Amino acid sequence: MNNTILIKNVSLDGKPTDIYIEGNRFKKIGGAASQQAADTVIDGSGMAIVPPYYNAHTHASMTLMRGYADDIELFRWLNEYIWPFEAKITERDIYIGAKLACLEMIKSGTVFFNDMYWHCDNVWRAVDEMGMRACLGMTFVDSLDEKDIAYNFDLLQKNGTSDRIEYSVAPHAIYTVSEQLWHRCAEQARRVGARLHFHLSETRKEVDDCMAAHGTTPVRWLDKLGILGPDCIAAHVVHVDDEELALLRERGVTIVHNPISNMKLASGYFPTKRVIRSHCLVTLGTDGCSSNNNLDMREEAKVAALMAKCNYGPQTLPVDMVFDWATRNGARAFGIDAGEIAEGKLADAMLIRLDNERMVPCHNLISNLIYSVSNEAVDTVICNGRILMQGRRVAGEADIVAEARECCERIERVKSKE
Amino acid sequence: MNNTILIKNVSLDGKPTDIYIEGNRFKKIGGAASQQAADTVIDGSGMAIVPPYYNAHTHASMTLMRGYADDIELFRWLNEYIWPFEAKITERDIYIGAKLACLEMIKSGTVFFNDMYWHCDNVWRAVDEMGMRACLGMTFVDSLDEKDIAYNFDLLQKNGTSDRIEYSVAPHAIYTVSEQLWHRCAEQARRVGARLHFHLSETRKEVDDCMAAHGTTPVRWLDKLGILGPDCIAAHVVHVDDEELALLRERGVTIVHNPISNMKLASGYFPTKRVIRSHCLVTLGTDGCSSNNNLDMREEAKVAALMAKCNYGPQTLPVDMVFDWATRNGARAFGIDAGEIAEGKLADAMLIRLDNERMVPCHNLISNLIYSVSNEAVDTVICNGRILMQGRRVAGEADIVAEARECCERIERVKSKE
Repeated sequence: MNNTILIKNVSLDGKPTDIYIEGNRFKKIGGAASQQAADTVIDGSGMAIVPPYYNAHTHASMTLMRGYADDIELFRWLNEYIWPFEAKITERDIYIGAKLACLEMIKSGTVFFNDMYWHCDNVWRAVDEMGMRACLGMTFVDSLDEKDIAYNFDLLQKNGTSDRIEYSVAPHAIYTVSEQLWHRCAEQARRVGARLHFHLSETRKEVDDCMAAHGTTPVRWLDKLGILGPDCIAAHVVHVDDEELALLRERGVTIVHNPISNMKLASGYFPTKRVIRSHCLVTLGTDGCSSNNNLDMREEAKVAALMAKCNYGPQTLPVDMVFDWATRNGARAFGIDAGEIAEGKLADAMLIRLDNERMVPCHNLISNLIYSVSNEAVDTVICNGRILMQGRRVAGEADIVAEARECCERIERVKSKE
Repeated sequence: MNNTILIKNVSLDGKPTDIYIEGNRFKKIGGAASQQAADTVIDGSGMAIVPPYYNAHTHASMTLMRGYADDIELFRWLNEYIWPFEAKITERDIYIGAKLACLEMIKSGTVFFNDMYWHCDNVWRAVDEMGMRACLGMTFVDSLDEKDIAYNFDLLQKNGTSDRIEYSVAPHAIYTVSEQLWHRCAEQARRVGARLHFHLSETRKEVDDCMAAHGTTPVRWLDKLGILGPDCIAAHVVHVDDEELALLRERGVTIVHNPISNMKLASGYFPTKRVIRSHCLVTLGTDGCSSNNNLDMREEAKVAALMAKCNYGPQTLPVDMVFDWATRNGARAFGIDAGEIAEGKLADAMLIRLDNERMVPCHNLISNLIYSVSNEAVDTVICNGRILMQGRRVAGEADIVAEARECCERIERVKSKE
């Protein structure tokens, strides 16, 4: 027998509505919904129901590196800080870091993330326990040994059986992955129908180096290799010309915009206006905590809108569009039948407290959601018909915070002994 | 007899400390502090104490216009949306809007704001009741009639007797205030030692129009009129050359950086690197809710840092500097002997919950404060030795929210009848 939830008297599109969830889907909205008997009844009065956020590019376990190295340029940041720190972390750290990330995401209304990290079977365990959705990319770089590559591909073959989680193959970027490894990654992914997730044209240096090495740009080079297709999720995509955008559109590649990371690392401004004109599928991601330094999709959407306006005029990227990028476009890109509050859709939702001081007045709900509130206004988060947070409480959160602290203290002790 | 507060076991610069407040000042930090008997004892364990935020440019009552008109260019936004809305609001609306603003600011760790609005005796009443500090600029524009001008100047003469609130004179901008009115404003302000607060070089259009009208730039024109001095607070200052920055420095003018408003209205990017090089006193402001759409100084500081990095490189505007802009520089600009947690200083502070999921790990407290947390991590706010918020509760908040809603509903009814 399926679990059932009845949300009573919640504001949907400005009208008080009852919503009945059966199993993992919205079964009935309005009308007869109120007559349903349910295992769980939520009093939705004083709250609005909206789609939750889908974070299309992050490195969840990097919460452990939050604030570890700020205000530094990308390549130095990677070489001198991030990679040496990562050399000290264990599989348990990856699991704990991912749990902290899940906690933070749930508390800011996010139900899904597209990840790229090492040993991502540990991330799987964290996501599974926390009840979120995820697409977990196993990272490939040339320096990986054959044992690790075999382990990853084996994991991919087995995959899991979760209806919320899947693996993808994540060749890191064109400057860390050889042509041969790109081909192996694509073959393995396509054999099992997994997605390909990678960084693309993030910095000017990446493009310049690619020109020097291959005589062409990263997008064109990957296309020449036959990599680009509708199963591809390309993060960043900052330094691209219109022809490259048209190519990405033609191949059906999903673009992930990561404005905060791009600005903080000074990678450059995303060409928002040209991307909109290209009709590519655009999603939004927070990138990892080490370059943001949080996983708050609301903040990401606001900064995306601000950056677009300052570069192209105040009408560019209106608030409804950036909300779609952060919600339904993310669901669509990952084949999740959700992203709107509608009968038959997967029951993913967040409930927003309308009496939060930043929700008042409410001339425009979506404007308040993106431009005004903080995560504090998110009261309840539902993912796949299961309540992950209610009244801003997430099960086990104090333990997760304590364990994450212990992990970092241990890593610091190891590092200080060197 | 003075009120006394003892904050026990709070983290100050990473060490557990007892802090004793007597009246409106920090009397004793560490050592003998713990032996003091106090009227109020706060358990500070699990929290860090840091200076609170000083919001150096806003229009508090415009909370009522939050989300009322987004994604529109500045002059159309003013002429077609903001000014017509303002034509419908009453003095009571101004009071209620300011109370909502105070509530929002307290809940995000702000204890002071520098305001510019109409009928600011109503704002005074709100600030006084809420226990904050403020400098309240009475707005002057050419369209004001002599009765209103006389009312304002009379208010200024009387001033109040609060140790937390003062009036200033706020000629709106060079494009709304004639040379003659600028002179009257400066004379009246200087007669009573009040500050002058204005918008300056906010848009390219303002500079171009000034060139056409006066043959020079806004900064140079105001200096020619003898306006610029150490009593001046200039908001925005986006479109200035190095010579103008040197002139502002020489005259001792305080610059208020409002990154979110500048980006949202597409006014342009603040020349952060050149401003830092000019050694002007720089502060941070949220501008009004109608162009932001909140009053969150933490978010403002993060966006200031992001914008600076993307435009000038990742080392520009490091996190400690932007935190100073948002805290101690604001206090200094307004002659408030606060902005640091030190014996003898005015007792302004916020207590941050270290177990908030976004404060973990804590490699760098200030980095977490600016780049990571939301207002939810701010547990307690103290202003002038008085507790304005504890455990995230502010006295009377439900009433403030309800009254603000009623105001906006009434304004909408009035507007829809036209």
